[in-house]
Amino acid sequence: MTTTLRPTPGRAHWVLAHPRRDSLNHHLFRAGTSALCSEYDVSTTDLYAEHFDPALDTRDLGSFADTPGAIPELTGEAYARGEVEPEVRREQEHLADAELLVLQFPLWWYGPPAMLKGWIDRVLQTGFAQGDVDEKTGHPRRYGDGRLLGRRALIVVTAGDDARTLGPRGVNGDLEALLFPLTHGALWYVGVEAHDLHVVHDADSIDAAGREREATLLRTRLAGLGEEPVRSYRRLQDGDYDRATRALREDLLPGRTDLGIHYRG
Amino acid sequence: MTTTLRPTPGRAHWVLAHPRRDSLNHHLFRAGTSALCSEYDVSTTDLYAEHFDPALDTRDLGSFADTPGAIPELTGEAYARGEVEPEVRREQEHLADAELLVLQFPLWWYGPPAMLKGWIDRVLQTGFAQGDVDEKTGHPRRYGDGRLLGRRALIVVTAGDDARTLGPRGVNGDLEALLFPLTHGALWYVGVEAHDLHVVHDADSIDAAGREREATLLRTRLAGLGEEPVRSYRRLQDGDYDRATRALREDLLPGRTDLGIHYRG
Repeated sequence: MTTTLRPTPGRAHWVLAHPRRDSLNHHLFRAGTSALCSEYDVSTTDLYAEHFDPALDTRDLGSFADTPGAIPELTGEAYARGEVEPEVRREQEHLADAELLVLQFPLWWYGPPAMLKGWIDRVLQTGFAQGDVDEKTGHPRRYGDGRLLGRRALIVVTAGDDARTLGPRGVNGDLEALLFPLTHGALWYVGVEAHDLHVVHDADSIDAAGREREATLLRTRLAGLGEEPVRSYRRLQDGDYDRATRALREDLLPGRTDLGIHYRG
Repeated sequence: MTTTLRPTPGRAHWVLAHPRRDSLNHHLFRAGTSALCSEYDVSTTDLYAEHFDPALDTRDLGSFADTPGAIPELTGEAYARGEVEPEVRREQEHLADAELLVLQFPLWWYGPPAMLKGWIDRVLQTGFAQGDVDEKTGHPRRYGDGRLLGRRALIVVTAGDDARTLGPRGVNGDLEALLFPLTHGALWYVGVEAHDLHVVHDADSIDAAGREREATLLRTRLAGLGEEPVRSYRRLQDGDYDRATRALREDLLPGRTDLGIHYRG
């Protein structure tokens, strides 16, 4: 049984969630996708322009809409039957093909906008992105053994706040920790390893010159991305977590409880 | 200038985000709202049933849809003109009235579903929930000084995982940290203090007896909620954060970088 979906070398998929075409985000989207095209075969999804519906709803359960059961299980049944909404299917095809995924969004309330969260909720469907079971243990394959293993992601995020207030002891919370549910809970869960975040701070007050500066920074980042290491999380299978409790072994980083403990040393 | 909106004593507002009426969530919703009615005047919003649109879009900018500027600023301009979508206005009225807010949802990808995130994105609008400026410093009032000060929130969340994997060193990350963007970044930002999370673990495999047990636990929790202290975050105004950098002062919990540093001692 094949548990991973192999990406196509040289393919990238860029997903944008911002409602305004004249926004800094769209400016960076145009600059970034254009720059990436010199090295990758790039597909793009502008979620707002395509009127993507972010609400995972009973239609995502196909003919199991009225079947008793939990949502993750029922979406898996629907996937197995091929009952996948066209807009979700198209994203799954792009994602399956891509070796590089770019997720771009403004930080709203210290997380991704509902539009991007809904892309996660609907596209990383059971059966497609996760849900395989280890035949020996009976446990689902995840955190390093998901179906999308072998892919990298770059998160491009604009924030109204500055770097210090979004730093490790800043009042807003560390941006790395705020986005842990995305980088670890969603992407790494299904096997995708994230590069360091690409952050544009003070984004709400940026002027035209600042926009160009940020576009240049993004183009430069993308040009060197292939040489950048990814910052990997620990694999569930490597013995770092207690087999019974799935908590980090007591002898590893003893006493620490910050989310940084889940990075591979 | 009045910077806070006073709640009406005895009013509660319960917001639910789950697509299935036969779900554990709806079961707990019915049990919980029914129990709460003995002590509060309760309004409810079943976001899926009401087809709430979770995507903050240009319609939320009113006549400023094409005006250059950042989204938080333009939604504030629209609010000042009274250009607020009816479904958003209704939620704002309920929220303004309520002294207790209950947010209930299943944990999807280690965060709230897009439907609940969209409620945050749209309802906590600039001008309504935040955006006032301190006349002396010129800084926006937030984290302890938001417009919704004086309200409490209870988060009721169902999770497919067990308590250990969602614990402080569990592989999924500590649930307290995973939901920090909600409890701190959204609720506390606008002045709402959260009670300890009400979590139902192993929710995907729960049987009928388990549902009843959880309904009883929730009813009991709600009956005693008035006597429970809230777990407060630090106020930005109390001097715990450096005035220039807004990072936690070096002499407070030195060396620590976990999100727990933001709790008031």
